[in-house]
Amino acid sequence: MSFLAPRFAPPERILMGPGPSDVPRRVLNALAAPTLGHLDPAYLAIMDEVRDFLRQVFKTKNELTMAVSGTGSAGMEATLVNLIEPGDEVIVCVNGVFGGRMKDTAERCGAKVHAVEAPWGEIIEPSAIAAALDQHKNVKLVGIVHAETSTGAHQPLEEISKLVHNAGALLLVDAVTSLGGVPLDLDALQIDACYSGTQKCLSCPPGLAPVSFSSAAVDRISARKTKVQSWYLDMSMLKSYWGQERVYHHTAPINMTYALREALAIVLEEGLENRWARHTKNHLALRAGLEALGLKYIPKHSLASLNAIHVPEGVDEAGVRKRLLTEFDIEIGAGLGPFKGKAWRIGLMGASSTKKHVLLVLAALESILGVSGGTTAATAVYA
Amino acid sequence: MSFLAPRFAPPERILMGPGPSDVPRRVLNALAAPTLGHLDPAYLAIMDEVRDFLRQVFKTKNELTMAVSGTGSAGMEATLVNLIEPGDEVIVCVNGVFGGRMKDTAERCGAKVHAVEAPWGEIIEPSAIAAALDQHKNVKLVGIVHAETSTGAHQPLEEISKLVHNAGALLLVDAVTSLGGVPLDLDALQIDACYSGTQKCLSCPPGLAPVSFSSAAVDRISARKTKVQSWYLDMSMLKSYWGQERVYHHTAPINMTYALREALAIVLEEGLENRWARHTKNHLALRAGLEALGLKYIPKHSLASLNAIHVPEGVDEAGVRKRLLTEFDIEIGAGLGPFKGKAWRIGLMGASSTKKHVLLVLAALESILGVSGGTTAATAVYA
Repeated sequence: MSFLAPRFAPPERILMGPGPSDVPRRVLNALAAPTLGHLDPAYLAIMDEVRDFLRQVFKTKNELTMAVSGTGSAGMEATLVNLIEPGDEVIVCVNGVFGGRMKDTAERCGAKVHAVEAPWGEIIEPSAIAAALDQHKNVKLVGIVHAETSTGAHQPLEEISKLVHNAGALLLVDAVTSLGGVPLDLDALQIDACYSGTQKCLSCPPGLAPVSFSSAAVDRISARKTKVQSWYLDMSMLKSYWGQERVYHHTAPINMTYALREALAIVLEEGLENRWARHTKNHLALRAGLEALGLKYIPKHSLASLNAIHVPEGVDEAGVRKRLLTEFDIEIGAGLGPFKGKAWRIGLMGASSTKKHVLLVLAALESILGVSGGTTAATAVYA
Repeated sequence: MSFLAPRFAPPERILMGPGPSDVPRRVLNALAAPTLGHLDPAYLAIMDEVRDFLRQVFKTKNELTMAVSGTGSAGMEATLVNLIEPGDEVIVCVNGVFGGRMKDTAERCGAKVHAVEAPWGEIIEPSAIAAALDQHKNVKLVGIVHAETSTGAHQPLEEISKLVHNAGALLLVDAVTSLGGVPLDLDALQIDACYSGTQKCLSCPPGLAPVSFSSAAVDRISARKTKVQSWYLDMSMLKSYWGQERVYHHTAPINMTYALREALAIVLEEGLENRWARHTKNHLALRAGLEALGLKYIPKHSLASLNAIHVPEGVDEAGVRKRLLTEFDIEIGAGLGPFKGKAWRIGLMGASSTKKHVLLVLAALESILGVSGGTTAATAVYA
């Protein structure tokens, strides 16, 4: 043998960044089960199970609920390319990276996009949406980010959903960093299209994008006058593959479907409400600890799954992250955009949302920053 | 606990259909390694290794060589959306499902598509391409399928490449069912853009699409006047993520990258030429066996990786496949399009291209069809 590849042995990290989160061994074992054919009756049964579990986790009865064969951004693109036709007027809310990405993608679909903006770290006020809907009467779709991963802002949706539907538009929601960790009820909120990722609060490796479309959204797709610009993401074909017809479209990522099945089973075994409560509890403990260390949150309305904090004056942002990684194997995230070099993002998602993670990251920060009192303050929250 | 999911235990199959092929345990173990963050230095090193290995397997020096975060069809779409601008004239060769899919996708990109067609099972003759190039002087791109998975036809590319480049067009090649199993040399053939899948001759689970672009193709992308219609597949951003800049674009399917790394390592450890020879040998043995059983090939120019044969008169096509699956755990493929109900497709790809697979499927067919002589004829080829 002339070539022998080095042994493959990636290091084991503690994932507390903006995703991926720690993946339970049970999920990794499912991922490594023998590969089935994509039309094998046994695989089709797994697809059905995934759809069923996804509906429970999304809290929806939507028939068109499935996993797109790509990562979260492919889920975003799948919703937009199917719901937008060239020339359509849409509103996209932008208060961070992921709202900006949604706007860019909607424009690539040929939409006339009206942006409703808020400063990074803040939420979108319903009054701003009301004003935009009032100004633009032909808006067909309003896109908004439930959990803005770049700032940690937690967007309330109840009031906005009413405004959007009263105006006769569809509501599209980015739930990449909320699904499975932060309260979300698609049917109660009347969300028409929603996309997420697997590597956040579901604690599955990245590679699939759960999506769900309401019947109004499906009607919109059925009434299209133009073909969907993406062949790969065309829901009119994908729904026949994931539906009872089983029309071959593409070869789904078989083993990733296994992992998602197992990750969703874990979510449902814990119970959604219990899981949300766990995320809240650990967030509050971490928050108490960080604030005891003198660290300040960026968003006023923080997600339980992601804690975005200001880097204190005079502290080497990248240097601290590097020490966390090399001395503790802990990954946390850097700031993006206007927060580049100025923020840390600490994720408490899925399997990474535990008391152990909270106390460890606080202890590590105390050690590196030369401060104290964080773990004590956090422990008090658990008491 | 109110809900307990059934134990996850998919059956173990012997994969001899049109893909996926059998995945070695070594690859499945890599797949199940602990998940890293997508910007972890350890993960970036794995991406670099995958690029290096992919260049060797594609036989190219192309800088822009990487794995698209989707299955083979996403790789197809990635090449088309980046290389086509609305109004561009392109030629697409159609002699099966995958040529037809390429044509459909090119049209969705706004191309004016001139189809060069051949009957299913046949190859595209260079003279037909010459005539089309002569008739349409503004053609910017010619797309063709190297290994037509729906018919098993093996398309020669040498002469066609010369014609395409003499006409000043770029050559785009679908190598989904050939890469790693059938001779392919991107640089020698002057292929400008090529896409493949992981679940065929590379014997990795599906979920990534290896792609490679020549410098001429990169220049074409750089000279675009319009934005790429897909955000997810926009190479101008993806090349900054996979390149030295490491600009965050999306979260790559981390664990799938592990599996691809390991699958490519296996290919390189065996050696490409050895691997091609192995695929040829096992194909010839299977062919001798099938023909001894009275079964006839559909394509005159058959791939070594995929054997498409006519179902004999009076034989229950689906019934035989079902017995192969239930009695032997062997998956083979059905016919598509005009061959629906009339063809079987037997894959000998990657780890599924072995003497053991050849003799087992022949013995199983003999048992089900009540015939004999196939295994003997195949064994003679190995002698």
